[in-house]
Amino acid sequence: MSNNQNKGKINIIPLGGLGEIGKNMLVIEYNKDIIIVDSGMTFPEEDMLGIDLVIPDISYLVENKERIQAIFLTHGHEDHIGGLPYVLRQIDAPIYGTKLTLGLVGGKLAEHDLGKEIDLRVVTPGSSINVGEFQVEFIKVSHSIPGAVALGIHTPIGIILHTGDFKFDQTPVDEEVTDFHRLAELGDKGVLLLLSDSTNSESPGYTMSERAVGASFDEMFRLAKQRIIVATFASNVHRIQQVVDAACKYKRKIAIAGRSIDNVTNIAAELGYLNIPEGMYVDLDEIDNVAPDRLVILTTGSQGEPMSALRRMANNDHKKVGIVPGDTVIISASPIPGNEKLIAKTINDLFKLGAEVIYKDLSAVHVSGHASQEEQKLMLNLTKPKFFMPVHGEYRHLVFHSQLAKKVGVKSENIFIIENGNVLEITQERGKVVNKVTSGNILIDGYGVGDVGNIVLRDRRQLARDGIVIVVVTIEKELGNVLAGPDIVSRGFVYVRESEELMDEAKERVRAVLAKCEEAKITEWSTIKSQIRDVLRKYLYEKTKRKPMILPIIMEV
Amino acid sequence: MSNNQNKGKINIIPLGGLGEIGKNMLVIEYNKDIIIVDSGMTFPEEDMLGIDLVIPDISYLVENKERIQAIFLTHGHEDHIGGLPYVLRQIDAPIYGTKLTLGLVGGKLAEHDLGKEIDLRVVTPGSSINVGEFQVEFIKVSHSIPGAVALGIHTPIGIILHTGDFKFDQTPVDEEVTDFHRLAELGDKGVLLLLSDSTNSESPGYTMSERAVGASFDEMFRLAKQRIIVATFASNVHRIQQVVDAACKYKRKIAIAGRSIDNVTNIAAELGYLNIPEGMYVDLDEIDNVAPDRLVILTTGSQGEPMSALRRMANNDHKKVGIVPGDTVIISASPIPGNEKLIAKTINDLFKLGAEVIYKDLSAVHVSGHASQEEQKLMLNLTKPKFFMPVHGEYRHLVFHSQLAKKVGVKSENIFIIENGNVLEITQERGKVVNKVTSGNILIDGYGVGDVGNIVLRDRRQLARDGIVIVVVTIEKELGNVLAGPDIVSRGFVYVRESEELMDEAKERVRAVLAKCEEAKITEWSTIKSQIRDVLRKYLYEKTKRKPMILPIIMEV
Repeated sequence: MSNNQNKGKINIIPLGGLGEIGKNMLVIEYNKDIIIVDSGMTFPEEDMLGIDLVIPDISYLVENKERIQAIFLTHGHEDHIGGLPYVLRQIDAPIYGTKLTLGLVGGKLAEHDLGKEIDLRVVTPGSSINVGEFQVEFIKVSHSIPGAVALGIHTPIGIILHTGDFKFDQTPVDEEVTDFHRLAELGDKGVLLLLSDSTNSESPGYTMSERAVGASFDEMFRLAKQRIIVATFASNVHRIQQVVDAACKYKRKIAIAGRSIDNVTNIAAELGYLNIPEGMYVDLDEIDNVAPDRLVILTTGSQGEPMSALRRMANNDHKKVGIVPGDTVIISASPIPGNEKLIAKTINDLFKLGAEVIYKDLSAVHVSGHASQEEQKLMLNLTKPKFFMPVHGEYRHLVFHSQLAKKVGVKSENIFIIENGNVLEITQERGKVVNKVTSGNILIDGYGVGDVGNIVLRDRRQLARDGIVIVVVTIEKELGNVLAGPDIVSRGFVYVRESEELMDEAKERVRAVLAKCEEAKITEWSTIKSQIRDVLRKYLYEKTKRKPMILPIIMEV
Repeated sequence: MSNNQNKGKINIIPLGGLGEIGKNMLVIEYNKDIIIVDSGMTFPEEDMLGIDLVIPDISYLVENKERIQAIFLTHGHEDHIGGLPYVLRQIDAPIYGTKLTLGLVGGKLAEHDLGKEIDLRVVTPGSSINVGEFQVEFIKVSHSIPGAVALGIHTPIGIILHTGDFKFDQTPVDEEVTDFHRLAELGDKGVLLLLSDSTNSESPGYTMSERAVGASFDEMFRLAKQRIIVATFASNVHRIQQVVDAACKYKRKIAIAGRSIDNVTNIAAELGYLNIPEGMYVDLDEIDNVAPDRLVILTTGSQGEPMSALRRMANNDHKKVGIVPGDTVIISASPIPGNEKLIAKTINDLFKLGAEVIYKDLSAVHVSGHASQEEQKLMLNLTKPKFFMPVHGEYRHLVFHSQLAKKVGVKSENIFIIENGNVLEITQERGKVVNKVTSGNILIDGYGVGDVGNIVLRDRRQLARDGIVIVVVTIEKELGNVLAGPDIVSRGFVYVRESEELMDEAKERVRAVLAKCEEAKITEWSTIKSQIRDVLRKYLYEKTKRKPMILPIIMEV
């Protein structure tokens, strides 16, 4: 024991995930060496108007970029790889991941014209590699995408185990179960710190096996008399495999509708993760040549996304697939929080077109990819960590996960619920939060990375709520008299044709302000503008109870 | 039988409910007589930016206002009474409802300065009244607010039974069970048409009794060591009664935080629906004088509403209640679809302040106020209707409800799933959709009723997404030469300080357009504007991949 003493300390810094801790990115430091786990993105919150996606603020990494040894990817979901095209413009390091993970990354980087110069290194579960003072091994786990791994990170002061996203599926579709033996072995050796997936820490019991969905598919395929349309997440390759298997059994051909699912299906089939028997595939242009009871259409839009294939089918404006009475639509997914109403609308619209719609509330057409409480406890019991830090979840999920850890015997003082940006320092004896680094959310809007901040968002919110009223007036510079205007233009405020009186009176009030300013010989434009703003704000609120943005513009001639 | 033949026909017209059929309002016609069931409002959809609430388009009623005999209210929830302040400005009729329902309506009308001239008529369950050719009886049902009734509408061609919102609570808190006997009696007499609540037609089995929540409260109150804060819907008087009962049993005093719950509690206590023993109440200003284990704070904000008391407590900026470690917060509600993320954020923030938070996903702290499938079937079996029209639900709920009706023996051709605005004509022999009247959603924004339509909303959506770019130029009228500008001002588009180059180049491009127009002697302002718009749209999209609204304004001198 004394040999191992005082070998220094490790810093753990969760860096991102918009409300979830350490989900998009987590940083591990030992002496000068930095390694990064995952580099994902998140979809924006509702009030982040116009934002396309959100990535973690990586200022800290940019400041320390010489120290970065590698990026390790646990699996190929967007919230773990989707930030790479932006992050790789600022930092440079080899990227390690399994075959499918890097296959998906490769496609993504190519879309951003970044493919060639990036150093992607494929690893296999069971192997390990050395970077700097770390040795990192890849441990097979189950999740809702193939190729998911936990990371066994061997450091000079002990082993850090990062589970990635995981569940313990005892009967996985690809028959490759989680590497329980290796987890147990590491537990025997002694795990210093466990970082474990908290997503489902509110769910008692065990998460069902992915195969339960296959059994449901079998039943539904057996009963369906006409076409079957299955919508699921494009990346859920095992789910897709089970659709293929059911189609095969019931002698149906498969067509694919949707760019992303077509893309993932191709990559997964090429890399050997997906097996579609020859002759099963039918082009979407040819589906009318297949009997309705011999066809399955695999598609996306399980979240009701406005531009998705399923949403367009529900709108009856998909170019190639028109829903007809007798169609069975299976929505094989759970709503991601925030999408409930979009999904409900899609379901209603499909029913209106005469389809039978089968979805989560009614049938076992989806299972989670994350461990429930019993699995989280099993992970803790297998690995027997000294220190525990729940990750991948909102704050309350971390609280519940830490309660589980206490139940299985981890000491309260050895459990760390920390927030993004906090630096947890671990020695062999103790852990504590020692520091806070720059962290936060970088908003991406079109080509802009981080150029939309609080001011722009605040303006967008005001514009969204009550619109804008623009007042333009041309003033003679020397004399200060009005040459043209005031003109008032509004957008998003009132229906102009029915509000002439309101706008005429508003113009009158502005004229009065201008006259008073001229009389008082006020030539400070900012004073005039602020008086216009005050008078109009008050008048318009009195009349409409709305607070549009008021924007006075003065032109000098 | 022959005596009853050919006595004419009844029209049923569901008029509103933003995605739900007949929820906010339903119209029944016989010959010249019209009666109205409910007059509610709905909260806006996510893409109805800046809208406060939505009511049904009642053009049809306004056109026929002389024919309106009465408005019947089934219960006092906002989606059944919240439209009255607007509707009563356009139509006039006596309003019938039970004591609590009209108590809540009275308060609402007073807020809109409408109280005095409205004819409110209190009815009791079990009684009936005659209006025009209708006799309407009020039948006690259970729901998540006291004073809820079904309507037995006796017409010359038969009985129409409208359930209102209902559940069959066998052990209601006020011990007044649904009037099963009267429902059975009407079934024996023969119900021509049943209109029944479809909200929970996706839920198998029975909805739990409200008392189940009381049992949970008892357990939680027994275990809580410090303050208890319960958030629920202001109108759920039975829930509030159960909080009071538990507080009483465990010798805690009650304070109330929130205007709406204070208001409802007062009305309900005054009318005898709520019993708060003397001396139990403590003013919110005095809570620091009560020991933490002797206090319950009753509040609103169970949906995470941004301005609510609970949300402010979670933000740590409530003036009178600061959350401290040891507080137990019970959120006694289910998320209304669309509110999931707001509620999750509130829960996370309360945990961060050290509270223990108990909510629906973890405990039985809420039950629905609506009938599940077995109760819906029982309603059908008790009333044995010839015709059935599911109401109060989204389209898919009506589909499931009609499947239940078929199972209990209603003939397929006698079941009518119709949409808002459709006119269902019923005779003693058959029903069919014969017509469609004006229907839709009237958006209320501040004082504006219906003045925000598609154009304003479309503008708000564009402004929300990418902001606005305004180009102003002053031009000499006679010669067409530029006197001032072009000036470019943007809001919600880019962070201006970091985009000077972009804006300078944009100005250059506008100058080029203006020069070309001057050269070509184009003096048609609309042509110049459209050229500016085209050039800028293309340039800004190229540079930013955003599509702000572009608004050229030309001032003539």
